[in-house]
Amino acid sequence: MDFAAQVVERLAALGQISDEPSRLTRLFAGPGMRRANELVGSWMEQAGMSVRQDAIGNLIGRHPGDGAKTLLLGSHLDTVRDAGRFDGMLGVLLALACVDRCRQSNRALPFSLEVIAFADEEGVRYQSAYLGSRAVAGCFDPRDLARTDAAGVKMSDAIRAFGGDPARLESCRFNAEDLLGYVEAHIEQGPVLERANQAVGLVAAIAGQTRARIEFRGAAGHAGTVPMNLRRDALCAAAAFILEVEKRARQISGLIATVGQIAAEPHASNVIPGAVTLSLDARHQDDQVRQEACDHFRQSLNSIEQNRQIQCSWQSIQETPSVPCSPELSDLLRQAALKHQPELTALASGAGHDAAIMARITPVAMLFVRCRAGLSHHPDESVRPDDILVALDVLFDFVSLMVQQHEQL
Amino acid sequence: MDFAAQVVERLAALGQISDEPSRLTRLFAGPGMRRANELVGSWMEQAGMSVRQDAIGNLIGRHPGDGAKTLLLGSHLDTVRDAGRFDGMLGVLLALACVDRCRQSNRALPFSLEVIAFADEEGVRYQSAYLGSRAVAGCFDPRDLARTDAAGVKMSDAIRAFGGDPARLESCRFNAEDLLGYVEAHIEQGPVLERANQAVGLVAAIAGQTRARIEFRGAAGHAGTVPMNLRRDALCAAAAFILEVEKRARQISGLIATVGQIAAEPHASNVIPGAVTLSLDARHQDDQVRQEACDHFRQSLNSIEQNRQIQCSWQSIQETPSVPCSPELSDLLRQAALKHQPELTALASGAGHDAAIMARITPVAMLFVRCRAGLSHHPDESVRPDDILVALDVLFDFVSLMVQQHEQL
Repeated sequence: MDFAAQVVERLAALGQISDEPSRLTRLFAGPGMRRANELVGSWMEQAGMSVRQDAIGNLIGRHPGDGAKTLLLGSHLDTVRDAGRFDGMLGVLLALACVDRCRQSNRALPFSLEVIAFADEEGVRYQSAYLGSRAVAGCFDPRDLARTDAAGVKMSDAIRAFGGDPARLESCRFNAEDLLGYVEAHIEQGPVLERANQAVGLVAAIAGQTRARIEFRGAAGHAGTVPMNLRRDALCAAAAFILEVEKRARQISGLIATVGQIAAEPHASNVIPGAVTLSLDARHQDDQVRQEACDHFRQSLNSIEQNRQIQCSWQSIQETPSVPCSPELSDLLRQAALKHQPELTALASGAGHDAAIMARITPVAMLFVRCRAGLSHHPDESVRPDDILVALDVLFDFVSLMVQQHEQL
Repeated sequence: MDFAAQVVERLAALGQISDEPSRLTRLFAGPGMRRANELVGSWMEQAGMSVRQDAIGNLIGRHPGDGAKTLLLGSHLDTVRDAGRFDGMLGVLLALACVDRCRQSNRALPFSLEVIAFADEEGVRYQSAYLGSRAVAGCFDPRDLARTDAAGVKMSDAIRAFGGDPARLESCRFNAEDLLGYVEAHIEQGPVLERANQAVGLVAAIAGQTRARIEFRGAAGHAGTVPMNLRRDALCAAAAFILEVEKRARQISGLIATVGQIAAEPHASNVIPGAVTLSLDARHQDDQVRQEACDHFRQSLNSIEQNRQIQCSWQSIQETPSVPCSPELSDLLRQAALKHQPELTALASGAGHDAAIMARITPVAMLFVRCRAGLSHHPDESVRPDDILVALDVLFDFVSLMVQQHEQL
């Protein structure tokens, strides 16, 4: 059987392993993750790898090569609730298939390969994402161990029950000097590659993100008795802001900005909204462009304050800087990809990934795989088998280029 | 004591009578209404009136005059939850004081006067407004008797417990041919008179109203992965509509239009809204102007559909035609008012009133009394004693003008 077909079969098998009977949900340190680690671990062993589970529950398979250095390939095995069957899993199984193919090609490697399957990327159970890669990158916050899940189970107890050791999370840490880099394949979770008609794309950076909560305070009033010219309608002010955000984001290349939540008070059909709160999410691969856009958004709030006699406030929720991918690793990925498709789009990842955490200790690169209709975090998430074949070829050729590069040194 | 000062005192006393201990709430057929009817009934008796409570709980005091006809003055005694102390009550107590003053002036009347205190205008308890005036105007819907309140009490049982008779609501009905008209004083519940610096204003009509529920369907998507040019953001579409509604309403004299409710789905800060639902409330005293405005709003939905690839739907919730006030009665009210203030603003009532129901059987007129900051349905609702004095003088002079007119016939 060819490797890509095996990846497709294994994705189907993994998709059956869930914490819940009728839908795919695999939360950190839950029963689904235990069975998923067992199954993927058995596949790693079949591929001749030495397998271990670290103190937080990450599954790691090692294919030793010559030299002291290791190249990491991987992604995560946890999912959101009612998930699709590709997000995370695809990257782990592509890494595994890539290593298996290297082994079966009998080529001596000047470095070791490790496949890492992170135990938590989505952060659903403890509302704290990247637990697995944080432990590996040495930036796990021990205070998180006291968090409890919806059932009241402490994270430290969950790790212990899973076979890990919350007191030894330091042992998960990789030494930066041992690593050549971390390369992750992942479904795009967006529509760009489908539109561009490309099986895979190159991630230039994991975009920085600004999250803010914005409030508009006007004056509530009876919808039947207050003439238009005497109104201070907070929802009209919010609408003006929403359109300004959209307009600006359309003007600036690569900028995406979203108002996803909105709440009006007092929220009655016959009362003029006196207050509105909304969420703003702005992302760009260049932090300066994102900051300038946010400055512009704040200026438009100032204009709204003055023109509409509305009080506006901006509460910062989160500021996450952009994480650029390694130019060197990305260049090899590009060379590998261009062997299999005529053009390669480089795009920013708007979603976060384990690679953004791993970048703290080692160069990272990411390969995006086209998905249907940009759909993700949904049972209809779908990737074409043909694209899985291309992604596997690219990953294998990337490793081959790394090998060539090392042999030339 | 002068009559206006007594109205102020009695408003304070009525404001203490509530279904709830710490705030003013007097719902239809509740314990507060029972005590309110008893107290106001005792004041009616002190003013020499014959008092009755009809089968639905309306309180009616009669001051007989010569001739077969009756002029009705009144308003309602029920309130919203956590109400102010003027909405409804002020009109009842002004009517009572006006009749008392007529009696004490010992002038023979060529018609009878009745003060009517409606039992339900706000419709809080059974989500069905104007129960009192509907019974009087003969348009009470008997199916409403099967409605239940939040505690599960059927309306028919509530009426019976209150001392009424749900089987005899037909007896509440007034004969149109016996009536000269219905005149109601009411707080403005808006800011127009305060801005115009006038104690009272004349209601030209009770505005017609369109209520609709409008839905925008686009495509949800990851806020981090879908570029701006590939989005079909339902909230941006809704924002464009909200601003178009505001713009149009500002252009058309007398038109008021409000989006008071808005809900976005799936309502997560990191998800592009795929669907938005909002409420639209549009009012104008001229039904044709309101219809043309709504046609324009629908056209703008068509533009949004085309420009943004968003599906828009308009669900009509309510279409209430405008109720014009009687030109004859209003002219007398105007003459009376201009004796007490140099200018008189005629305005549409955007809020509904018992007068709109009473117009089905008799000519109606309404006098608005200035309130502080347009505030109503709120414990801070406030009317100046000076304005109460003016309103009483106007109402008394209006009755005197009616008397003169009848004597001239």
